[in-house]
Amino acid sequence: MIHVNAQRLWTTLEMLAQIGGTPAGGVTRLALSEEDRIARNLLRDWALEAGLTCDVDSMGNMFIRRVGKNSTLAPVMTGSHVDSQPLGGNYDGIYGVLAGLEVLRTLNDRQVQTERDIVLVNWTNEEGARFAPAMLASGVWAGQLTEEFAWSRMDNKKVTVREALEAIGYRGERPARAFPVHACYELHIEQGPILEDDAIDIGLVRAAMGQRWFTLTLDGFAAHAGTTPMHSRRDALTAFAELALKVEEIGYHHAPDGRATIGMAQVTPNSRNVVPARVVCSVEFRHPEQAALEAMEFALHQAAESLAARGVTASVERLFDYAPIAFNEACLARTANAVAALGYSSKLMVSGAGHDTCYVSKIAPASMIFIPCVKGISHNEAERILPAWSEKGANVLLHSVLAAAQET
Amino acid sequence: MIHVNAQRLWTTLEMLAQIGGTPAGGVTRLALSEEDRIARNLLRDWALEAGLTCDVDSMGNMFIRRVGKNSTLAPVMTGSHVDSQPLGGNYDGIYGVLAGLEVLRTLNDRQVQTERDIVLVNWTNEEGARFAPAMLASGVWAGQLTEEFAWSRMDNKKVTVREALEAIGYRGERPARAFPVHACYELHIEQGPILEDDAIDIGLVRAAMGQRWFTLTLDGFAAHAGTTPMHSRRDALTAFAELALKVEEIGYHHAPDGRATIGMAQVTPNSRNVVPARVVCSVEFRHPEQAALEAMEFALHQAAESLAARGVTASVERLFDYAPIAFNEACLARTANAVAALGYSSKLMVSGAGHDTCYVSKIAPASMIFIPCVKGISHNEAERILPAWSEKGANVLLHSVLAAAQET
Repeated sequence: MIHVNAQRLWTTLEMLAQIGGTPAGGVTRLALSEEDRIARNLLRDWALEAGLTCDVDSMGNMFIRRVGKNSTLAPVMTGSHVDSQPLGGNYDGIYGVLAGLEVLRTLNDRQVQTERDIVLVNWTNEEGARFAPAMLASGVWAGQLTEEFAWSRMDNKKVTVREALEAIGYRGERPARAFPVHACYELHIEQGPILEDDAIDIGLVRAAMGQRWFTLTLDGFAAHAGTTPMHSRRDALTAFAELALKVEEIGYHHAPDGRATIGMAQVTPNSRNVVPARVVCSVEFRHPEQAALEAMEFALHQAAESLAARGVTASVERLFDYAPIAFNEACLARTANAVAALGYSSKLMVSGAGHDTCYVSKIAPASMIFIPCVKGISHNEAERILPAWSEKGANVLLHSVLAAAQET
Repeated sequence: MIHVNAQRLWTTLEMLAQIGGTPAGGVTRLALSEEDRIARNLLRDWALEAGLTCDVDSMGNMFIRRVGKNSTLAPVMTGSHVDSQPLGGNYDGIYGVLAGLEVLRTLNDRQVQTERDIVLVNWTNEEGARFAPAMLASGVWAGQLTEEFAWSRMDNKKVTVREALEAIGYRGERPARAFPVHACYELHIEQGPILEDDAIDIGLVRAAMGQRWFTLTLDGFAAHAGTTPMHSRRDALTAFAELALKVEEIGYHHAPDGRATIGMAQVTPNSRNVVPARVVCSVEFRHPEQAALEAMEFALHQAAESLAARGVTASVERLFDYAPIAFNEACLARTANAVAALGYSSKLMVSGAGHDTCYVSKIAPASMIFIPCVKGISHNEAERILPAWSEKGANVLLHSVLAAAQET
């Protein structure tokens, strides 16, 4: 059974971490920035050195192809993204891209001829840090967003995506549009603590969570903090506190897969000696099951209405409703076989974050493979993985991709 | 038994409400502004028309004097402040000043000769809205703050108090320094709901609450809202919510006199899909008893420490510690006698807010008299009182001041 060259993969990761590297050991490689251009060029050069081709589409998505025996068959796809968060880590996204490159290099080393072509993809602007929303270019490719919409997104300096693509020479001629794909795998760090906590090598990602985002506005009545007795108050902040604990309860009620988060809150008038009149806050639910998301939203409305007992009204506005994604079972089965053959440990799990492969799964069989990351820390310069984790993930990717690529 | 001219007082209040009047029917008359100058000049002119004298000290405090039989005796003092909050009401402060003027006018009308002089005072910058801290000039007068400190306070345009005093022609030559006072009364709107709720005419203010102000910093750990299970979180915001409800409990535990308020909170990083790393908030306790304030502070420390169960640390910093003020019993007795003689209802109560007379009480016998205000609304353009409430308060002030001024 063949294995990847783990040392080469690790060295390649270290080389790419230099591009946009920060003093604290992380990386700032925003989408379509000069750092992104240098990283893309390096990836392209490595691909060409390996005898592979590299195409770029109108969204800057890069497709590196290793030709199989029969290019009329739908290819197998793998990949992730080169862009990073500001002050992000060295593995989020780029690990999946470079592990994919290592798979292709390994197949070359072993002179393995596959039935199908294998395509390694780098999706543009996955993070959404420079241009919102996230997963912009895979969204266009999968027909979920229009090119016009995507090109017109602007960064905080009013530079559009189209201008930025042209500035770094990565606006390809071929339209960003899905082509037939036999199977797609994305290998990624978990960005959460589960695999490390459970000492598991590989996460078989069976689904991506649905998400519902809300804005709540709690209205009480501003009052003098000294002259207003406790029982005369209509305090929007203590009502918010009650709501926040109920939102947390909703998350625990739907554990272990559910997530309930208040990330944002704004108090008005926000003065030390005024009982707050208003709190505006975000609420975000995630869960892999649609029925659970319904139940969470219902519980949120109940919690909001219960604040009337405090003389506080709460309006609930739903901003986004992303349905859960169930990944492809045939794709998962190949990965499970690979894990078993390699003698690694694994568990079925759910992605709490969105990934490009969620969009890919709309038009092709797809699934994801997770490896642990230290303490679950991600979107942070302190993001870390161990070389052994990196190696195991790449071996599992190799045999998942290879199994699919040999199917006729 | 003589009574004030209630209609004249009401008309005088309405005239003064024009100076800095807002479209919504409130007033913006910030300390040492042009509006303050006009109001001060009008007050001085009314005093001179009434045959009274008007002195101004180095902090701009105005002392209007009605001479008694023996000016070598310590005078009786009354008064409050002309300045207002931005978008404030028509009664906070100015009611006490103009009711004092009405007392002097009534004594003139009835040709009452008092044993002692009566001094009507307008204290500069009570609100603290333009220049922090509040009660600045009475603090200097009572020897609690230095003139140097007070003069150097700046507004948000970097204008100092000294410059602002000179700009409106109200920096007097005589140093702001306490002189002997036989008794001091401040008549004020309650700024809370108690008197109206209980249908009581007059509050006999026996004390002003002590205040303890804190800043708390709650530190958890930022994490991805999608990938971090509920039980792996160290969420500063849900910890804050638990704390806020405990602070509210502390207030209820010390009801009816206790107050516990979180007016201000700031979440970091304040992003919808990041579990909050940090919350910084204010906590403010008020109570008329020092022992109760001690207990409240102790309970706060306990609540903060209990957040360790959530993996959140809380540091507690005490910013201010104002001791409770017990007002003078002889002063209160004269007011109680006046209420009884006039046939009004009254109750002993505590001021939750700070007032200039808290500083005056440091060096002279003093107490306060409250009248109701509609729904307890104050520091708001919607602040309202009824003419009948205004009349009763002024009659009680008249007979409190008169009783003291006839003592030899």
